[in-house]
Amino acid sequence: MNEMSSFQRISRERGVELATKILARAGYSDDHASIMIENMVEAQAQECHSHGLYRLIDCTKVANAGLVNLTAVPVVTDHAVSVVKVDAGGGNSLLAFKKGLGLLSEKAKANGIAALAINNSFHYSALWWEVELISELGLVALAMSPTMPFVAPYGGIKPLLGTNPMAFSWPRPGGEPYTFDFATSAAARGEVEIRRRRGETLPPEWAIDNEGNPTTDAERAMSGALLPFGKHKGSAISIMVELLAGPMIGDLLSHQTGQVNNTENKGLVHGELIIAIDPDRFGVSVDAAEGLFQEIVGQGARLPSQRRRTASKRSQSDGLLISSELLVELTQLCDG
Amino acid sequence: MNEMSSFQRISRERGVELATKILARAGYSDDHASIMIENMVEAQAQECHSHGLYRLIDCTKVANAGLVNLTAVPVVTDHAVSVVKVDAGGGNSLLAFKKGLGLLSEKAKANGIAALAINNSFHYSALWWEVELISELGLVALAMSPTMPFVAPYGGIKPLLGTNPMAFSWPRPGGEPYTFDFATSAAARGEVEIRRRRGETLPPEWAIDNEGNPTTDAERAMSGALLPFGKHKGSAISIMVELLAGPMIGDLLSHQTGQVNNTENKGLVHGELIIAIDPDRFGVSVDAAEGLFQEIVGQGARLPSQRRRTASKRSQSDGLLISSELLVELTQLCDG
Repeated sequence: MNEMSSFQRISRERGVELATKILARAGYSDDHASIMIENMVEAQAQECHSHGLYRLIDCTKVANAGLVNLTAVPVVTDHAVSVVKVDAGGGNSLLAFKKGLGLLSEKAKANGIAALAINNSFHYSALWWEVELISELGLVALAMSPTMPFVAPYGGIKPLLGTNPMAFSWPRPGGEPYTFDFATSAAARGEVEIRRRRGETLPPEWAIDNEGNPTTDAERAMSGALLPFGKHKGSAISIMVELLAGPMIGDLLSHQTGQVNNTENKGLVHGELIIAIDPDRFGVSVDAAEGLFQEIVGQGARLPSQRRRTASKRSQSDGLLISSELLVELTQLCDG
Repeated sequence: MNEMSSFQRISRERGVELATKILARAGYSDDHASIMIENMVEAQAQECHSHGLYRLIDCTKVANAGLVNLTAVPVVTDHAVSVVKVDAGGGNSLLAFKKGLGLLSEKAKANGIAALAINNSFHYSALWWEVELISELGLVALAMSPTMPFVAPYGGIKPLLGTNPMAFSWPRPGGEPYTFDFATSAAARGEVEIRRRRGETLPPEWAIDNEGNPTTDAERAMSGALLPFGKHKGSAISIMVELLAGPMIGDLLSHQTGQVNNTENKGLVHGELIIAIDPDRFGVSVDAAEGLFQEIVGQGARLPSQRRRTASKRSQSDGLLISSELLVELTQLCDG
């Protein structure tokens, strides 16, 4: 995706058609393709371009390189009273999530709190999509996963941690949950890459060079490391994500995924942890939080995810916004 | 506590003696006093001065003002399969935590993940103490609580959120867990107050004045608002803490605690949420994380809580470090 290209709109149906053809051509099973399309088209509709149809290119590349199991059938295990485990079998994480969601929700509603551990999954999708599917069920959701080692711990000098996203969704009456989803790095790696291509400098506190010195040079940052958001506090949270969605569930840390990927060419396969909580089992209603949201908006602050919501409404009436350059590329991938 | 005073050392026994006499004089029941002393003396030993014996002054003040139930007997409810609730009855949170810990641990070990909700508690203590008691049991712990409305949401102009601490502890072989515990505000209110008294300016991004403009003036900050750590990301996390340890468990948001405190004089009574997870129930060992800690330390970064650990060792051999001024004040409170 080139951030300087012009944009146009296509129908949602055309988006689905492109994705369907491209994923079939890449060899994904219908089960995998179906949920990947649902996820990507929704991301496109919400103008999360980096997690939208653009990912069809990556998903084709990793398929062609044999880095992902295209027909993996996730295996769901009722692992403990409040724990569901899903072995994604080296396949895409979304199908594993979908297969585990029912039991997670059942356990959370029966027990008050439950965890879903996804192992051995190829993960490219935004976590907001998953936590919002959970909050639609009236549950509170927290999700996290390690990624690849691009981030230095605070006070460190070398990449070690992942960009380790964390997402949270809280159901609200009226259907628009309170959701956040962000990398625990100061910026996404893609944002640094965009500035590098534009020849722009980086804001301070985003990155260090390969000697561990602070840098605003995007080129040096790409060969150095990103920094965590929020100094030592963000770094501590990023490490928590590594621990909970790595060794806690018997899966890899970001730097281990990095090694596996680099030396054995096994792809970006790692784990994800999702916690679901049922407020009903605490004897309360989430509606009591509405006053807080009113106060936040009332003083001029924004709730997270509002940009997505606005975009989603536009897409419903006008179709999917897509970069013209990406559309050309996808059309070639589809027909070529 | 005056940050410019000189320090001296007293024996741990003398610390316990001072605390015992002062809390008895203030009217706390033996059950409450016992765990408050354990907690405060340990904080003092770990040189967490703001949560150490200094709190005896506050605990006396709120007792004299009738803001805390000195003899409250916490009521533990086995609320759902994986949920324990404890009604602290307006008493100190520590006794409620202690009373709920056994059932929380039992549920986490049986079910894999469990939650402890403490309601209606007077809370002054550091969360690291609680999460480390849980990680000593081989469980992973996450704790959070709202406080009083001192913090503006990111992009906002007025105090609304609490300083909302979040703490996490991960058991490690050898006994020193990976623990973090911090306010989700850019700084603790006490740090701003210290700089105000010293006539020092604040770092940027700590605070806004009462018109919502960024300020480095500590005086203006005290009548304005603190900012969350880490911009919009820290703000989103602070709101998550409000939601999970407030309405999710049927308790107050920080701004509601503020109102109650100001208008009905009922004290700093609110809730706390603690989540405990048993890695054994995920079929894994936490030892797999050790490589990450080695990598972090190996590149010169620090693990959180190291300062506390070093202080704790010093205190074991040399006794408790205490400000001479505080010691005078406590001796007067004890004998006067």
